Amino acid sequence: MAVTGAAGMIGRKLVARLVADGGLSDGVRELAIERLSLYDVVEPAPIEGWFGPVDRVATDLGPTGAAEAVVAGRPDVIFHLAAVVSGEAEADFDKGYRVNLDGTRDLLEAIRRAHLTEGYTPRLVFTSSIAVYGAPLPDRIPDAYPATPRTSYGTQKAIDELLLADYTRRGFVDGVGIRLPTICIRPGRPNLAASGFFSSILREPLAGQEAVLPVPEDVRHWFASPRSAVGFLLRAATIDSALIGPDPTLAMPGVSATVGEQIGALRRIAGDAAVALIRREPDPAIARIVAEWAPGLEARRARELGFTADASMEEIIRAHIDDELGGTLR
Amino acid sequence: MAVTGAAGMIGRKLVARLVADGGLSDGVRELAIERLSLYDVVEPAPIEGWFGPVDRVATDLGPTGAAEAVVAGRPDVIFHLAAVVSGEAEADFDKGYRVNLDGTRDLLEAIRRAHLTEGYTPRLVFTSSIAVYGAPLPDRIPDAYPATPRTSYGTQKAIDELLLADYTRRGFVDGVGIRLPTICIRPGRPNLAASGFFSSILREPLAGQEAVLPVPEDVRHWFASPRSAVGFLLRAATIDSALIGPDPTLAMPGVSATVGEQIGALRRIAGDAAVALIRREPDPAIARIVAEWAPGLEARRARELGFTADASMEEIIRAHIDDELGGTLR
Repeated sequence: MAVTGAAGMIGRKLVARLVADGGLSDGVRELAIERLSLYDVVEPAPIEGWFGPVDRVATDLGPTGAAEAVVAGRPDVIFHLAAVVSGEAEADFDKGYRVNLDGTRDLLEAIRRAHLTEGYTPRLVFTSSIAVYGAPLPDRIPDAYPATPRTSYGTQKAIDELLLADYTRRGFVDGVGIRLPTICIRPGRPNLAASGFFSSILREPLAGQEAVLPVPEDVRHWFASPRSAVGFLLRAATIDSALIGPDPTLAMPGVSATVGEQIGALRRIAGDAAVALIRREPDPAIARIVAEWAPGLEARRARELGFTADASMEEIIRAHIDDELGGTLR
Repeated sequence: MAVTGAAGMIGRKLVARLVADGGLSDGVRELAIERLSLYDVVEPAPIEGWFGPVDRVATDLGPTGAAEAVVAGRPDVIFHLAAVVSGEAEADFDKGYRVNLDGTRDLLEAIRRAHLTEGYTPRLVFTSSIAVYGAPLPDRIPDAYPATPRTSYGTQKAIDELLLADYTRRGFVDGVGIRLPTICIRPGRPNLAASGFFSSILREPLAGQEAVLPVPEDVRHWFASPRSAVGFLLRAATIDSALIGPDPTLAMPGVSATVGEQIGALRRIAGDAAVALIRREPDPAIARIVAEWAPGLEARRARELGFTADASMEEIIRAHIDDELGGTLR
């Protein structure tokens, strides 16, 4: 198995889960890990609990030959998570296209070359994003809805989905794409992403810290916990492609919540004192960006295919407390 | 003005019309032709009636530098028609991506470089196709409908649309894309395209020749005459981009007709003797391909923006008689 973007937040959790589970299994298909090949722009850290063959490689998929290296060991499953994030892809046009478009296309081409010479056809799990949707959007976006991205990042992800579908249709690769919701609660320090506050207004108060809320409480968005995101990836790795049909990218389920509902869930779990740590500092620029984001998805196909999301914002918060805070609040 | 694919059927008609009109005009915006720069894989023929500066260049937009050359003269309008057709893009995977994806992206990049250095922002008219739609399809596809192509050609066109939208959104180019219906009646000899019979069952009988019909009469599809297609291009070249909004590619209007309705129109114009020249030779392979094609579009946005299609299949046939047969049947 190979993972690009293995040093990222989701990548690390995915690898830890794969190792803890001893491989992939969905009750029907079982796949042991023979070798773990991890790629990221920084060298992925050693993996706790894994004593088998491993590659930990620092590469950004940009230069020629990087994709060849990922494919060289003929991994049976490739999780392709590596990407330049939304804000950076908007700020650095060339880098965004080089990594998010060319990097993915290079990987598909490297797979295709190995397919044409030796019939290699790995399962490729590709992480797309709800950034492929652009305003105007209904409250519940149906599965069959146009991808009209309003960012370069969303454009690159939408293009990758089209490539994945064509390479899969032609039989060069066994691709499955998943459109991830906004991940909440992202662990770690606050970052500068426009979406950062959706996590920090929960994460910081849970840790007794102040957080800034830049948008009104009626802003609605679509969320999944890191734990759910890893579950989506595992399901995507094992699902029978015959069940998926000609469009290999699935919109993932999640929790639709307003900021007010996020705060309500925080109050029920951590009390008024936690909520009092949220400082309102309206930022019209962020409010304008976020207003165009997906408020919610139907995700009917994915639910029917066994992709399972968190049940509620409370469950999302409890997953964070379990996975990041040792199971209890201080 | 520059035209890629200038030696193709639509390219030649476009150039002839530009020269006949003395430039572009939509009643509001007037644009004289200062120079005509024509590109195709074969050297475009000399232009009748044009005595101004001209470039006629044989290039396939594949090699590095070809797109630079198109942009070098800083044309105010670029019609980008060049493409590998559907059947060839399916048969030659590499060539399809090289010309239809990389060729378009190279052109956008060459424009962007000139934009960043000197503010050059031409109108780029890009011809997309209803091949971006994939089954299942409603009888009238609305403007907001997902592009889920089922061919490499359709995939490449859908990707080009996404690139055009992002480059336009960023202000690097003033792009307008048009999703062309199947062109009917294509002049010239029958070709091997799966769609060829839609034209040949009309064109050949109008010329007193036999034609083969490989599909049932209830097959429904979406058509525009070459004359309408040229009209779409001219409208796309002059339209105020402020009217278009964030999605610069528009689905073009057309005539929705079954094969039976095509034959009915032929009968009304050319009589039973012409219809008797159509020989039924069912071809399940072609029938299967064509069954997945778009039966019709709403094309509401385009109609509201002044893109005008043929009124009926009869009008499409009469346009062919006027433009290709000297105005009368033999």
